[in-house]
Order: sequence, then structure tokens, then C-alpha cells
Amino acid sequence: MGETTGTGGIWHGGDLGRARALFPAAPEPWIDLSTGINPIPYPLPALPLSLWQRLPAADDEAALLAAARNAYRVPAEAGIVAAPGTQILIDLLPRVVPDLIRAGPVAVLGPTYAEHALAWRKMGATVVEADTLAQAADAATVVVVNPNNPDGRLLSVSELAALAARCAARGGLLVVDEAFCDFTPEASLVPALPPATLALRSFGKTYGLAGVRLGFAIGEANLVSALRDAMGPWAVAGPALAIGVQALADAAWLAQAGAARAADAARLDALLAPRGEIIGGTALFRLLATPEAPALFAHLGGRGLYVRRFQADPTRLRFGLPGDAPGWARLEAALACFPHGG
Amino acid sequence: MGETTGTGGIWHGGDLGRARALFPAAPEPWIDLSTGINPIPYPLPALPLSLWQRLPAADDEAALLAAARNAYRVPAEAGIVAAPGTQILIDLLPRVVPDLIRAGPVAVLGPTYAEHALAWRKMGATVVEADTLAQAADAATVVVVNPNNPDGRLLSVSELAALAARCAARGGLLVVDEAFCDFTPEASLVPALPPATLALRSFGKTYGLAGVRLGFAIGEANLVSALRDAMGPWAVAGPALAIGVQALADAAWLAQAGAARAADAARLDALLAPRGEIIGGTALFRLLATPEAPALFAHLGGRGLYVRRFQADPTRLRFGLPGDAPGWARLEAALACFPHGG
Repeated sequence: MGETTGTGGIWHGGDLGRARALFPAAPEPWIDLSTGINPIPYPLPALPLSLWQRLPAADDEAALLAAARNAYRVPAEAGIVAAPGTQILIDLLPRVVPDLIRAGPVAVLGPTYAEHALAWRKMGATVVEADTLAQAADAATVVVVNPNNPDGRLLSVSELAALAARCAARGGLLVVDEAFCDFTPEASLVPALPPATLALRSFGKTYGLAGVRLGFAIGEANLVSALRDAMGPWAVAGPALAIGVQALADAAWLAQAGAARAADAARLDALLAPRGEIIGGTALFRLLATPEAPALFAHLGGRGLYVRRFQADPTRLRFGLPGDAPGWARLEAALACFPHGG
Repeated sequence: MGETTGTGGIWHGGDLGRARALFPAAPEPWIDLSTGINPIPYPLPALPLSLWQRLPAADDEAALLAAARNAYRVPAEAGIVAAPGTQILIDLLPRVVPDLIRAGPVAVLGPTYAEHALAWRKMGATVVEADTLAQAADAATVVVVNPNNPDGRLLSVSELAALAARCAARGGLLVVDEAFCDFTPEASLVPALPPATLALRSFGKTYGLAGVRLGFAIGEANLVSALRDAMGPWAVAGPALAIGVQALADAAWLAQAGAARAADAARLDALLAPRGEIIGGTALFRLLATPEAPALFAHLGGRGLYVRRFQADPTRLRFGLPGDAPGWARLEAALACFPHGG
């Protein structure tokens, strides 16, 4: 049995229906630690009925893009497009740039979010899953998730800029997926976006509203425009535009959420440390390495705690953050009675 | 000045920001008659916060597809995919079927919703905008909006089946856009879907919830699967899944809405008849032909009533339905004082 699968049989977290199928005897409510989604969401603004009734207005889309430009510090000359989630941009990108696929192999710096490699493979690209930048040396196009999911590996802005220059020289592209960069804005490549670079930003994780479906691609105008063309008008729902506008302009909320989740992540590290090696992560998730990962996954699952395991490495588990005191208490109690390791 | 433009400079209705720009002195509130969206929306169900917080669950998507299969009477062997609106399916279709473009010209039975022709042209297809089926005789792929927007032209199920057979023989495809077919289910090709046919269904128009972004493609499993692959998982927002499930299962609401809108359309015809020739339409819009259309558009616009004009034919105006008594009163008064025609 596997987790919820996307296209190509890739496992994903976040689907409690799958958790219930794996552990039918587990107590409810489930505590979902299988994602990197902030468990304390941005407070939903009032959503007038007109947002649901009417086609999303051009002015509302423009307001969202302006808020995103400001929040992500997008250079004026760069293009930006909003989509119903970043996933669709990952899937569309290889379809709108056939020249890139002809330019040479695509390296995905891994292990990472598996949909990147799949999307390129589906379009016939030669994909190299590289563990190091050195292994990506022959690629024309390189995909980096930064900070990386699940291990938090972070390339510096200068490393990324050098990588972008190499991709540009080969007629390729650097794709930087900054889905988990909102709490570490100094790590973002967007404010000094090099040529031949496409940055992806996700709304749902930081703001704890993954069901809204909102993501962005930022890069050269012609590439961004090709992505927009592939979706046509109105791809983002009216309520998503309104929620995004308000949340992306709320710097105070972002600052307090970042501090609060960093404290949560430290608390999680303290709980996990006796159970294995904490490889890394971000303020929204931590990655634990232990040979007992399969047993720990089952132990937690039987207690209604759903964490993320990995097809490629059965010795690792990713833990998201509990969102309330009962969640923390159940996690702490379950870890305390795990009979192995330590 | 034009209306809101999609890709390729196509005019669309439904954007009151555009109406305000065209008629800055018009009284508020605007009465938007520029779309074919039901002005009386399906009542929004309660939307638990979890729908916004979590990634849309596989079970929720499966429930939506089951509801859509039942509502649209989809044959068991046909595939169905949900998307964030039908528009994105229109844009993606020519990208996932390069063989179709090689099979021969694409005929779009027009005049109709202009995004179909644009989407095929963007991918290099030779597009014939055919006024009659005879003019589409050389095409491998044919696009029919049925009933048609804006004139309501309806091809019978047997005409469509014959067309599908011809497309199949040429290695092409029949695309039937049934965006306005919910109130006339007997006109739908879906229950007896022929081979080499893709049907599109839209949620937002009938249910008056265009901002939700929800549409479907129904057809052969491999084609539907290719569309799904181009979007990846989670393209439809969590709240959209929940709203769609409830609304598509509500046959009683659909029946009363159909009867009520048919009565509204008859009322609209009575108001419009003195002003020109009513070419046709559906229960959600009516098409008026009059040489005085440009003057009438401006006359109504100045009074805060926004109707749909057409790039290709300046003698026609499409009228959506007012949604309340003040809207009807303002339309009636504005038509009564239009100084021309009659």
C-alpha cells in the first residue's frame, strides 16, 4: 500500500483518506504531520458572494500580481503569472519550452519533490536526478528546490546565480522552486533574478491554505507569458485572488508566523532528537533519519499520527508541525512509547 | 476601447472594471448583463475551514467526479477529468493532441466562443471558422458549441454523431462544448458519447458560480488522462470540489432554476422584441440583431447596464438576465427610452 499517488505513482502526503486506509484502527481525529503546510492558517478574510458568482475580474488578478510582486520583491522587468497552485506550473513548464528539452539533459537536484522530474520525463526529457551540483554538471536545465523539501538543503544566492549563468550559456534554464522560502526571504533568488531563471512560489504552505490553490511563476516575460497562454484567462478562482491579495500584503502576520513556526520546529527537533538524526528541514517540517523509520511510521500511524515516508529512502521520515496542544501531546506521548531506538 | 481581453485580444464579458472604464459616468451599481451566467446562484454550502487548509483530497475529487458522472449521465467506459474551469481545458486540449493538428484542419462552427479557435491557432493548427457544417467538410477536427453561444444554434444528437463519425474516419476529433446544455439535457451528446469525441461541461454558468472555477472534459480515457496529466494533481480547489459535489447532486434545484430562467428569458424577449430581431439564445442569454446595436450598447452603458457586443459583428448584442427586480426595472426603463428603432 502506498500513500496518495499523483501522476506516475508518486507518493504525496496530506491525504487523510489514505491514512485511514493504511491504519483503519487508528483513533480519530487524525493528526496530519505528513505535509509541510503551516497548521495555523492565515485568517480567511470575508469573501463576498460576488467573488463566487462572477468571473474573476482582470482588476482583481492585477491586484494579486501587484501584491505578489511586492511580497516576493520581483524586479520590475520580470514577468509573473498566477496559477491554481504551483503544481500545474510544474506540469506545464516542460510543455511550453520544447527548445529546452532539445538543449540538453535536465538535472533535478535531489532527493526532492518528485513531481519535477516526472513532469520533464513525461515530455521526453532526459532527466538526471543529481545528489550534488557536480552530478548536474552536464545538464542544460537544472531544477533546484530551495530550501529543499524534505531535507532543507539550501544553495546560496551566489551558487544559484552561477548555476543560472551556466544554464544560460547552454541554452537551458534554472528552475528554482521556492515553495518553502517565505520565512527565509534572504535566501530567495527572486529579488536579483538572473537571466534564464524561473522561480516558483507557493501560497498554500506558508499561509496554511493549500486548498485555495495558488502559486506563481516569476521569470523572463516571454516564458511567463507562455505559461499564462497555456492556462488562458481565469485559471485562479475569485476567492483565491481575494485571499492572496490580503495575505501577501500582511507582512506582520508573516513575521509572527515565521517566528512561531521556528519555535515549533525547535520543539519538534527536541522531541525527535532521541529517535534518530535530524537531517534538516525548514520551519514547517523536519526530516528524521533512522533505520527504524518503517517501524516508527507504523507506530505513529496506529496512534492516528500520519507522517511522511519516502519511496526512495525507507530510513527517513518527514514530520510536519502539530497545530494545537492536543496534537503536540499525542505526538509526544506516541514518541515516548516507541519501543525502539534512543 | 475594448472589453476585457483574454489571450489574443479576444473580448469577454463579465468584467465590470472594464464597464466602468468604458462608461465612467454611469450610475452604480452596475447591472451586468454581459455574460451568460445564471444571476441567481446555487446557494453556497457551508465550507469547513479544512477545505481551505488541506490539499484537496483524492476522496473529495473522486466524489466530485462521481457526482458529475451522474449529473451528466456519463457512460461508464468514458473518462472524465475536472479542471479549474473549462477555459483551461480549451487551452490545454491542442497541446496534448499534436497528432490531431497533423491530421488536418480544425473547423470551429461559428460565430461562437472565440477562445476555441485561438487555442488551436496558438498551437499551429490550420483553423477554419465555418458558418455551416458544409464549410467544415474538409476538417479532421471540428469544434461545436452546443447549444451555441451567442446565438443558441443547436445541432441534434444525430447530426453530432454523424459529425463524430466523420472526424473519427479522418483521425480527428469532435469537440462538443456543452457549457450551456445543463437546462436542455436532451440535447447533450454525453449519454451516448461517440468515439473520437470530447465533451466539455461548465459548472459556473448554470449554477451562477463562475468564480469557483470548475469544468469537466469527458471522452476517451487516454485523451482525458492526457488532459489530467497536463495539470497534475490538485488543480481544482478544495472548496470547488465541495460546492460541485453538492450542486451537481441537486436535481431539484436544477429543475426549478431551469424553469425560472426560461421564464426570465421569455420576459427578456418581450422587452427586446421591439428593438430588433431576436436571433436566439438559451435560457441564460438572448441575442439581439439590430443595426442600431452600437448606439444601444452606449445607451445602456451610460445607464449602468453592461451588455455584450461582438468584435466580429457590430450589429449584434447579447443580453444576460437581470437577477432582481431593480435590475429588471432599470433594463425596462433604459430600453423604453432608447430613442431609435422600434
